[in-house]
Amino acid sequence: MQFQPILEEIVETVRPLLGAQGHVANYIPALARVPAAQFGSALRTCDGQEAQAGDSGTRFSIQSISKLFALTLGMGALGDALWDRIGREPSGNPFNSLVQLEAEQGTPRNPFINAGAIAVTDRLVSQGDAKAALLELLSSLCNEPVHFDEEVAASEAATGFRNMALGNFMKSFGKIDNDVAAVLDAYFHHCAVGMSCLQLARATGYLCRDGRHPFSGEQLLTERQTRRINSLMLTCGTYDAAGEFAFRIGLPCKSGVGGGIVAVVPDRLSLCVWSPALDATGNSLLGMHALELFTTRTGLSVF
Amino acid sequence: MQFQPILEEIVETVRPLLGAQGHVANYIPALARVPAAQFGSALRTCDGQEAQAGDSGTRFSIQSISKLFALTLGMGALGDALWDRIGREPSGNPFNSLVQLEAEQGTPRNPFINAGAIAVTDRLVSQGDAKAALLELLSSLCNEPVHFDEEVAASEAATGFRNMALGNFMKSFGKIDNDVAAVLDAYFHHCAVGMSCLQLARATGYLCRDGRHPFSGEQLLTERQTRRINSLMLTCGTYDAAGEFAFRIGLPCKSGVGGGIVAVVPDRLSLCVWSPALDATGNSLLGMHALELFTTRTGLSVF
Amino acid sequence: MQFQPILEEIVETVRPLLGAQGHVANYIPALARVPAAQFGSALRTCDGQEAQAGDSGTRFSIQSISKLFALTLGMGALGDALWDRIGREPSGNPFNSLVQLEAEQGTPRNPFINAGAIAVTDRLVSQGDAKAALLELLSSLCNEPVHFDEEVAASEAATGFRNMALGNFMKSFGKIDNDVAAVLDAYFHHCAVGMSCLQLARATGYLCRDGRHPFSGEQLLTERQTRRINSLMLTCGTYDAAGEFAFRIGLPCKSGVGGGIVAVVPDRLSLCVWSPALDATGNSLLGMHALELFTTRTGLSVF
Amino acid sequence: MQFQPILEEIVETVRPLLGAQGHVANYIPALARVPAAQFGSALRTCDGQEAQAGDSGTRFSIQSISKLFALTLGMGALGDALWDRIGREPSGNPFNSLVQLEAEQGTPRNPFINAGAIAVTDRLVSQGDAKAALLELLSSLCNEPVHFDEEVAASEAATGFRNMALGNFMKSFGKIDNDVAAVLDAYFHHCAVGMSCLQLARATGYLCRDGRHPFSGEQLLTERQTRRINSLMLTCGTYDAAGEFAFRIGLPCKSGVGGGIVAVVPDRLSLCVWSPALDATGNSLLGMHALELFTTRTGLSVF
Repeated sequence: MQFQPILEEIVETVRPLLGAQGHVANYIPALARVPAAQFGSALRTCDGQEAQAGDSGTRFSIQSISKLFALTLGMGALGDALWDRIGREPSGNPFNSLVQLEAEQGTPRNPFINAGAIAVTDRLVSQGDAKAALLELLSSLCNEPVHFDEEVAASEAATGFRNMALGNFMKSFGKIDNDVAAVLDAYFHHCAVGMSCLQLARATGYLCRDGRHPFSGEQLLTERQTRRINSLMLTCGTYDAAGEFAFRIGLPCKSGVGGGIVAVVPDRLSLCVWSPALDATGNSLLGMHALELFTTRTGLSVF
Repeated sequence: MQFQPILEEIVETVRPLLGAQGHVANYIPALARVPAAQFGSALRTCDGQEAQAGDSGTRFSIQSISKLFALTLGMGALGDALWDRIGREPSGNPFNSLVQLEAEQGTPRNPFINAGAIAVTDRLVSQGDAKAALLELLSSLCNEPVHFDEEVAASEAATGFRNMALGNFMKSFGKIDNDVAAVLDAYFHHCAVGMSCLQLARATGYLCRDGRHPFSGEQLLTERQTRRINSLMLTCGTYDAAGEFAFRIGLPCKSGVGGGIVAVVPDRLSLCVWSPALDATGNSLLGMHALELFTTRTGLSVF
Repeated sequence: MQFQPILEEIVETVRPLLGAQGHVANYIPALARVPAAQFGSALRTCDGQEAQAGDSGTRFSIQSISKLFALTLGMGALGDALWDRIGREPSGNPFNSLVQLEAEQGTPRNPFINAGAIAVTDRLVSQGDAKAALLELLSSLCNEPVHFDEEVAASEAATGFRNMALGNFMKSFGKIDNDVAAVLDAYFHHCAVGMSCLQLARATGYLCRDGRHPFSGEQLLTERQTRRINSLMLTCGTYDAAGEFAFRIGLPCKSGVGGGIVAVVPDRLSLCVWSPALDATGNSLLGMHALELFTTRTGLSVF
Repeated sequence: MQFQPILEEIVETVRPLLGAQGHVANYIPALARVPAAQFGSALRTCDGQEAQAGDSGTRFSIQSISKLFALTLGMGALGDALWDRIGREPSGNPFNSLVQLEAEQGTPRNPFINAGAIAVTDRLVSQGDAKAALLELLSSLCNEPVHFDEEVAASEAATGFRNMALGNFMKSFGKIDNDVAAVLDAYFHHCAVGMSCLQLARATGYLCRDGRHPFSGEQLLTERQTRRINSLMLTCGTYDAAGEFAFRIGLPCKSGVGGGIVAVVPDRLSLCVWSPALDATGNSLLGMHALELFTTRTGLSVF
């Protein structure tokens, strides 16, 4: 299949809708001032074909997409021990709710809600320099240096009271080993990574290759671990809209409030779309629309 | 692929484990006295090939698997209007919790939790004889008469206080149109349908055929509606273990506390396994094990 | 102290405010059509002095005030065994919430929330004819025949889905012994008793007399049981406004959505005010105002 | 009434029970090593009569009793504006639950649960040096210098993750103005005040004197504000046992996990009992028993 014309066609379809609906995340200034009228997409197939269209080279804040890579680091380092303190089921509550965390004694439902990602990060901090580890993984995966946006990280830290509440709450149940401030410093930096669609399409390549590094072929995760991540993306990767994504797009996806969404077609390709304006569930409105066009156009859905 | 030897091989693998673990559902006598040491499986491919092994012809109580067919009737009759009062997202709470229902003003999270299925049944009752409609659908789908087990239905009614609470609670929010007792009478009968693995493998055939009747080819649901059901099965079809099913089995599944589980491989086949002993999440322990063996052996997983 | 002029003075103060604020309960027609612009008050002292003013002889629907008398019957018949299934602490949730009931496994927080009163009524039904028992108690306490308003009882039953949910929910936890419909029939009738301010001021006389019948002097409850009821009234008697009542009025009170409020000054007198328009918490707006005037004017507060 | 013999009699009654039941608070070492077998009591009447018995001069950690004095400072400084962010109703949940705080958008139910006291402390921090202000108030009220136990304060800070979660959670709703760490530093110090029964009996004297300072007669709070505090103590002062306290003791009380309980008999006296072993609700077991003996012996109950 030739993907370049398909991505270009999607850009043409989406362009008239740019800026018309949704709202850019506004809880920190550095995100709030990103112009809404941008859209990019990129993909990379298992055999190395690449395609990109629109603002595919523009770097944006990956935000919660980082949870995917933190989880990958955690599964690689800890194996099944990672799951001692983190569940693997959909949450059915807004992504930063404390209610479920209280009912379940400080064990977050899954690694893609904030509490779960903070718990994963805590385990990474126990392993060493969690910030450096993520940059190293991402730089390797997309074959070029990746950096934090320090301004975004500082803004996250300055306003992240809910996340500080989550971290301290889990710590009160004995479920966080390290100093909460140190864990959150790593967590906020992870969210503040800046990457482009093309970089993310490359970086997620191991998820469509049964865990093998997209360039070196090295086994980052086992096939079984990779399937775990893909199934978690499908059931929990898009906040409280996982059911809607599974239906409309039918692919494992992970979204971030920076407007990015990565998607995986197992054994075929990995994909990233980006557009900053979000819907009420915190997912990129045009990103979701573009993914739906892509699966309709290509027939590449798991259902 | 030759499926008959695969199913036979699975029976051989599972047989030594029969009765060793888990517990038969015991909330009503008619279910509690079903011998635990039974196992059956059956499948039917899109081109009509059938395979079966073990107790594949033994009828059992389909219980929550009926929610799948009630939903099919509801989507067929009402189209998108069905979703006015029923959500489509995972619940993250035990399948009969009232907490979420209260927080969301009487709107159940999805049609596969009890509250959601009762809400679907209410809409069917508004359409006419909901009990007859389900038997008619099932008899047509598996090409032979299907019946209620009246003893099971009576037991469900005699002990179904939680369901009566759910029904009355939704009615207090104005979300149930009909008399609650009448709706629950239909709902309890739906749960009390008796079918065999082979019958269920046939009956779910429209789910792997983009909505077309497995024998007549008639379009029961649109392709889009069928994809909606399959994605709901994957994200919400197995109580609070949807994440685990998605990972371990990787197929849209719907389970019942009678020990049955149906699964769909889109464009390939539909499948049913059955074994009465359940795990802590209310899913058939050996049924789940057998499905995992099947997807491992055949490679037929969506991830 | 001469109470007659005090009650008359309060009527004069309250009269200009009649009908200006609040809303008559409108969930059943029989309550909705009660004219808002009515106000009555009456009291009876421990030594038999009576005073009354305004619409003190008009009968109104006592609604939740009946919970007080059902509790009295239950404590008299069962002693401490009554508390096996009913808590005695404030609820902190709206009076008909199911959330707390789920968290606490079907045990209501106290006998003055709906769930608690239904649980008390269940115990009364086990003792015999719970409807007759309440009428007999009330007729004896106010020394003249008291009746149900059957139209109100029928309306309650026709719309009481939340209460049916509560009853069935507790039954699902094994906390209700009798048929839920039979329990609710008694409960709805209890709520539908019609009494006047004067009748209620007389009927609550045992609460300021350490449990002795206001006319016969017979010991209905022990002194200790009476103190239990008075303390429950102070901490839980007025829905989610118990803190506000304790502060503003400083007396044990029990209110109903019919607009009545009874209050007790231990060792001094019992009192009833009535005005149909309610505030957002479901308590009579002018009733509350009148009680505050009364305690300010007389200094009869427990604090 | 002669109170000295009554307090002595209570000490004799309680002495054989010392150390037999309950557990000393063990969440910080400084509290865990307090010997359980201690009991003291002291009271001071409105006309200046004092009585004391047992370990009435031993200083203990006042813990949550400090919430009473922080509230007094807050009401004095801010008047009704204090209630903009703090409710006044019983909570019906364990004293440090986040669930209710989430449901009510960061507004704590009352000033005696941890969240409420942290919110009060935040307002005090906005007024100036909240730590100095509390010591100044207490030293004035009991007419001798009062100090923090810095070891206790440091322990609270080192383990107070739940409180850090509460503070950050309220801040995430915009309900905390100051730096959370600064607010908690003051809050933890307030809890770490060391006082004796006699000091606390003196210090609470304004609560039985309509707000007037026990020694200087200065009006610290209005009569109305004082009544507000007393009613809050009765409905919310003893964690999740307010109903039980109201029934068994029938006085406004405030307890702390250091084992102290203060009680107020309006217009008569203020009282403090102390014994370190706690019951399951976090209240001093023998303290509660002693208060019950006191009200039974003296008849001084509000009911």
